[in-house]
Amino acid sequence: MLIVQKYGGTSVATAERIRAVANRIIKSKEAGNTLVVVVSAMGDTTDELIDLARQVTDDPDERELDMLLSTGETVSCTLLAMALRAAGHPAISLSGGQAGIRTESQHGKARITSLEPRRILRELQAGKLVVVAGFQGVSAEADVTTLGRGGSDTTAVALAAALKADRCEIYTDVDGVFSADPRLVPEAQLFKEISYEEILELASLGAKVMHPRAVELGWVYDVPIVVRSSFNDSEGTLIHGGMNMEDRNKVVGIAHDADVARITVLAVPDRPGMAYAVFQPLAEAGVSVDVIVQSAPQGGCTDLAFTVARSDLTKALRAVEPVVTRIGAKGLIKDDTVAKVSVVGAGMTNSPGYAAAMFKALADEKINIEVVTTSDIRITCLIKRSQIKEAVRALHRAFVLQH
Amino acid sequence: MLIVQKYGGTSVATAERIRAVANRIIKSKEAGNTLVVVVSAMGDTTDELIDLARQVTDDPDERELDMLLSTGETVSCTLLAMALRAAGHPAISLSGGQAGIRTESQHGKARITSLEPRRILRELQAGKLVVVAGFQGVSAEADVTTLGRGGSDTTAVALAAALKADRCEIYTDVDGVFSADPRLVPEAQLFKEISYEEILELASLGAKVMHPRAVELGWVYDVPIVVRSSFNDSEGTLIHGGMNMEDRNKVVGIAHDADVARITVLAVPDRPGMAYAVFQPLAEAGVSVDVIVQSAPQGGCTDLAFTVARSDLTKALRAVEPVVTRIGAKGLIKDDTVAKVSVVGAGMTNSPGYAAAMFKALADEKINIEVVTTSDIRITCLIKRSQIKEAVRALHRAFVLQH
Repeated sequence: MLIVQKYGGTSVATAERIRAVANRIIKSKEAGNTLVVVVSAMGDTTDELIDLARQVTDDPDERELDMLLSTGETVSCTLLAMALRAAGHPAISLSGGQAGIRTESQHGKARITSLEPRRILRELQAGKLVVVAGFQGVSAEADVTTLGRGGSDTTAVALAAALKADRCEIYTDVDGVFSADPRLVPEAQLFKEISYEEILELASLGAKVMHPRAVELGWVYDVPIVVRSSFNDSEGTLIHGGMNMEDRNKVVGIAHDADVARITVLAVPDRPGMAYAVFQPLAEAGVSVDVIVQSAPQGGCTDLAFTVARSDLTKALRAVEPVVTRIGAKGLIKDDTVAKVSVVGAGMTNSPGYAAAMFKALADEKINIEVVTTSDIRITCLIKRSQIKEAVRALHRAFVLQH
Repeated sequence: MLIVQKYGGTSVATAERIRAVANRIIKSKEAGNTLVVVVSAMGDTTDELIDLARQVTDDPDERELDMLLSTGETVSCTLLAMALRAAGHPAISLSGGQAGIRTESQHGKARITSLEPRRILRELQAGKLVVVAGFQGVSAEADVTTLGRGGSDTTAVALAAALKADRCEIYTDVDGVFSADPRLVPEAQLFKEISYEEILELASLGAKVMHPRAVELGWVYDVPIVVRSSFNDSEGTLIHGGMNMEDRNKVVGIAHDADVARITVLAVPDRPGMAYAVFQPLAEAGVSVDVIVQSAPQGGCTDLAFTVARSDLTKALRAVEPVVTRIGAKGLIKDDTVAKVSVVGAGMTNSPGYAAAMFKALADEKINIEVVTTSDIRITCLIKRSQIKEAVRALHRAFVLQH
């Protein structure tokens, strides 16, 4: 099998861990596989480099920051190649550019425009293990770019797609994808398999196992992805598209996200263009808006509430405040004591009982629901952050365990 | 003026030092100069990266090591570009490859094959300060290479040559080139100017201000080089070719090198081919041989003595030992308690009094001379290492101060 493996920062945090990863790769090679390996930067390297930049300036230039940050992955991938060679296996490290990863020139969050793995194929043909620096590419101007959040996962899945690999293995510090966060719910179940769509909903709701962007890419190119631990021999979770959804319990898992704040714009005039007036400045400020709820109009006005990442709250308020007066709204309320909890599963919204069962499970725990939204495959409630643990446990009991 | 500046590791060791270097660059720009800046890795970064590699394997692959080490200069050059931008001056960092530095593929000590500064010229034309990562280039296979010892100096001088810069300024942690090591000889004099040839002799004899390779390049392409401190406003030393040597004191300075060991092959048969038999295995082992002295033959035999770097002594003995029996010599003596001290100056050997004056100055200090060799512009004596300080001071008194 041709396999693309990806190892995250904790998996390569020390020289000792790098040698352990090398042994894991060699074991897979000796089992007859051909391997391309993608690595993240060691441990906290990326944060340390950002800190170094901030010691020089509060506002580092993004092109320079990309070139700076890319060194983190360069270091780990050369060390891994050295460890493989030292263990007697021909290996070579490649930068994103050498691996043929071309991107847009939007620094800090460049998207891959093309991937021409000629050099990788040549090195594989020469019998080498190929180690590729994750998270990076080069622009048409030959400048180093980084792929933004989840960048190394994206590198791995994109390589798997371009190489038509049999699968992409994402090694991390957890055993795979669980039905809820096992730190909150000890009885959470490890999935043997899960669909792209389901893990996307789980991921976008705060289950941090794998970045949604990489999952999407896997979905589009139909790359089977395995998420598993680099610290033990757990089989992990297989993410793929070929599942018979009807055959299984509709609720897949319980996701939660505590990094949330809510902003409410009070008494927005009920006229066309108001939502645009509010959300356009947020988009310009680079703030992602999540749950949006507009109340039923009363007296020609509605309240417009939405959530943002808690770390974006100040930026969001700064963007929205000028709008309030301009559109004649009454004011602005912020609440950074909220959290999101979601029940995720395919086809839930077509089966009416689920929402009711969710509300009951929360009510039984005396948890107040502040906002509800639904998508095709999830129901999300905004609740007080202080009650998140009880909420996740109650929902897991109510939905996952009983099926 | 178009100036290439180069800042060494101690000059960019911290974020604070990087900002100080940025201010120095800006001052030069505001004085009307166009600037390309070359930087080394911050402080001890290179050693730390080598240490990291050794934690992974005793024998790191050279291609991987080059890619690893190149990150040191990438980090410092992006930080400097950020600092310049933060101070309001458009700036861009370029890797060796982006700067157009093409090299042989001999990793660890690649020589520059061509330098096409198209990107640099484009960025200069756009009004930017250009910061180039020193010590690195790319091979024809698009692999990162490093230029070996003195690599960043070589980058700077090569860029100055390719850009036809008016001068190349090497910023370091000393004030310039002195007539002797100021740590040994407090009254040592700072040269206002010196010729390429003279500094080459000083450098190859242990004066560590600038790497000989970079000086040679400057000599070949006639690049005026200024060596000065980044910690003060000293004018430094101008290295150039257009000096009237007859006009000045013939002795330029006193050089010394304590990193020396001597090997003597005893009673070598006085036949053709003997020297080749001894030195060929040393060349194969990569050991550079310095002072070579062969005694006058006695009874059909001569003693063959030579010096090597002290760090190469074990390797050198291992290479020469098998030869001793093969050629029928009597044995091998090593002595790692010696040091070299040299009087350097143009045309000295044509003026007979110098050698005699050197021997007298050393004899007056009761310093025994073990070996003497001369070149066109220097006289070198091998003495006991324990007497090096007295020797350098006495020679400085005798030659430099009295003229």
